[in-house]
Amino acid sequence: MERADKMLAFMLQYENIAWYENGAVKILDRRIYPLKTEFVTCRNHIEVTKAIKDMVTQSAGPYTAAAAGMALAAYECRDKSEAEMSDYLEKAAYTISNARPTTANRMGLITGGCLQAAKKAMAEGKNVSDAIVEYTIAINNMRYNKVYKMAKYLVDMIPAHGAVMTQCFGETIVGQMCRVLKEQGKSDVRIFCPETRPYFQGARLTATVCNDMGMDVTVITDNMPAFVMKNENVDVFTSAADAICMDGYVVNKVGTFQIAIAAKYNKIPYFVTGAPDHVHPTIDTVKIEMRDPDFSLQALGTKTTAEGVKGYYPAFDITPPELVSGVVTDTGIYAPYDLKRYFENGNLGEYEMVI
Amino acid sequence: MERADKMLAFMLQYENIAWYENGAVKILDRRIYPLKTEFVTCRNHIEVTKAIKDMVTQSAGPYTAAAAGMALAAYECRDKSEAEMSDYLEKAAYTISNARPTTANRMGLITGGCLQAAKKAMAEGKNVSDAIVEYTIAINNMRYNKVYKMAKYLVDMIPAHGAVMTQCFGETIVGQMCRVLKEQGKSDVRIFCPETRPYFQGARLTATVCNDMGMDVTVITDNMPAFVMKNENVDVFTSAADAICMDGYVVNKVGTFQIAIAAKYNKIPYFVTGAPDHVHPTIDTVKIEMRDPDFSLQALGTKTTAEGVKGYYPAFDITPPELVSGVVTDTGIYAPYDLKRYFENGNLGEYEMVI
Repeated sequence: MERADKMLAFMLQYENIAWYENGAVKILDRRIYPLKTEFVTCRNHIEVTKAIKDMVTQSAGPYTAAAAGMALAAYECRDKSEAEMSDYLEKAAYTISNARPTTANRMGLITGGCLQAAKKAMAEGKNVSDAIVEYTIAINNMRYNKVYKMAKYLVDMIPAHGAVMTQCFGETIVGQMCRVLKEQGKSDVRIFCPETRPYFQGARLTATVCNDMGMDVTVITDNMPAFVMKNENVDVFTSAADAICMDGYVVNKVGTFQIAIAAKYNKIPYFVTGAPDHVHPTIDTVKIEMRDPDFSLQALGTKTTAEGVKGYYPAFDITPPELVSGVVTDTGIYAPYDLKRYFENGNLGEYEMVI
Repeated sequence: MERADKMLAFMLQYENIAWYENGAVKILDRRIYPLKTEFVTCRNHIEVTKAIKDMVTQSAGPYTAAAAGMALAAYECRDKSEAEMSDYLEKAAYTISNARPTTANRMGLITGGCLQAAKKAMAEGKNVSDAIVEYTIAINNMRYNKVYKMAKYLVDMIPAHGAVMTQCFGETIVGQMCRVLKEQGKSDVRIFCPETRPYFQGARLTATVCNDMGMDVTVITDNMPAFVMKNENVDVFTSAADAICMDGYVVNKVGTFQIAIAAKYNKIPYFVTGAPDHVHPTIDTVKIEMRDPDFSLQALGTKTTAEGVKGYYPAFDITPPELVSGVVTDTGIYAPYDLKRYFENGNLGEYEMVI
């Protein structure tokens, strides 16, 4: 598992981590990292699905967890006939993909790719779990390379000695952005990370990655972005996205919409990183996930308000294209109104990322 | 102390509380309320100053604490000559007023009023501490009446069956707003309270007051206001202010600026409650208080990020008049560009509130 170990080392630092080994899936518990480094162990793909649903891992993490869950599902049905295995894996793919409604389409691409790898292995008489792991490593490496290219285009937009504001975790792109900032002699760029309540992904994950990369990073609370833009000369606001629809609407962690409004008001560009989503021709195809409302009534396990007060918790919000200055992809920066052009040069977008 | 008890009962529910009795000042510890109801006991006015600086009480609380601190200072110097007492109290007034730089001017009005009450008591041979307590009760009652009038003008702006968003604690006005909503048959108006990190005043205090008043109240995290405005038909955004400058700039808890930007974007009016500040002819006279940056790196005592990450903590931000739909006072609603008119009918604004 040399390659897997290498991936593990990379991902432990820059990303959510999940991996399959010996009939179990281990997932880094991002709900408590970096204060504690603990792993959730799943013994079957139903437990993996539950872990994804319970937000054990976030951002790109669920995709790797889903693939690891498919390897585990293959282990679960290893003694069945080929037809039964196919059937079992197809059901597992459906279960895992629907762990979180907002990302069901993208998850389906991952689990669909795993299914193809599994069928190829079955036809060739190879170990199916191993084949799925190999496939996962291959698509992750491909993604890291794409994100590295993306980071180069993003960093071109950040002036020397400048300042950038992030939102939520931002998966691999944050680590790659720091890497490119250093490669291009912009290592003194200041990074401001809103903490991203109620899970604190910005404080716990984004800021930790930037700090590990040796950058000057400051955590602010989620009510400070507009103040910081105005008073700390922020040059660029950037975020990744859970979905970039073909009509230029961006679906991302709740708060993105609000920071994008503040950025426009303060004349600061907002660059979203990622690839346009073929599966979302318009924003109307996106379902915003409402999570347990009571989760907004506590912080790190301590209740914040009186009994009887209601909670509210939309996992994502929607930023319209008029607030998006550019969609930063692996092949350049596109206007949010012109995303079809991304596909004109043979790019497959999110499909290519995972298949 | 019948009147003081009545005030205590009222303030415990709707406001920060601090009172002087028998050589000590007790201040409700708003940093932990309503999860715990504990009081900080101060044995001299230096301890009161420290408590104000340490944010034991917030919003209007520091003004009552300052007055109680003056009563305590009078107790400290009770055996001195009249001239020595005057000197001691003047120094105490200066010390207490400067506990927090942003509010030094308003605090000076309170402690100045206490000084006048003290000098009158000395001239009449009365107990000086008691005289200061009487003065405090009188100005608080006057303020409650004014805020009740203010609440009536504010509630006129909230449609029946509507929804209102608050920011931070909002002192007495929140309780009075709920009272007037019920009086006017608008008791089904929904209230959304951003939690107000890093101290959670919105979750702990604003929402608790609304809940105690029997209103339908929802706490949201500070990255949700724009989403909630768009998706929950919010009709009005309102906040109190630490200062309303004569040029229409509003100084209030950090986050107000950002919510006001989001409100304007979503075509929702922002009404700030309070009186214009004669002592701030322009925003240039306001000094924004920067507090301990590390406080933004924790939530309710638990660290949120990795070692080495920087913090940042402006206590307040500045909202320009272009984002303010109206200044709601005890004599009506004024355009932020037309605040001089407030004083044309003999109103004294903040001066009148405390003298």
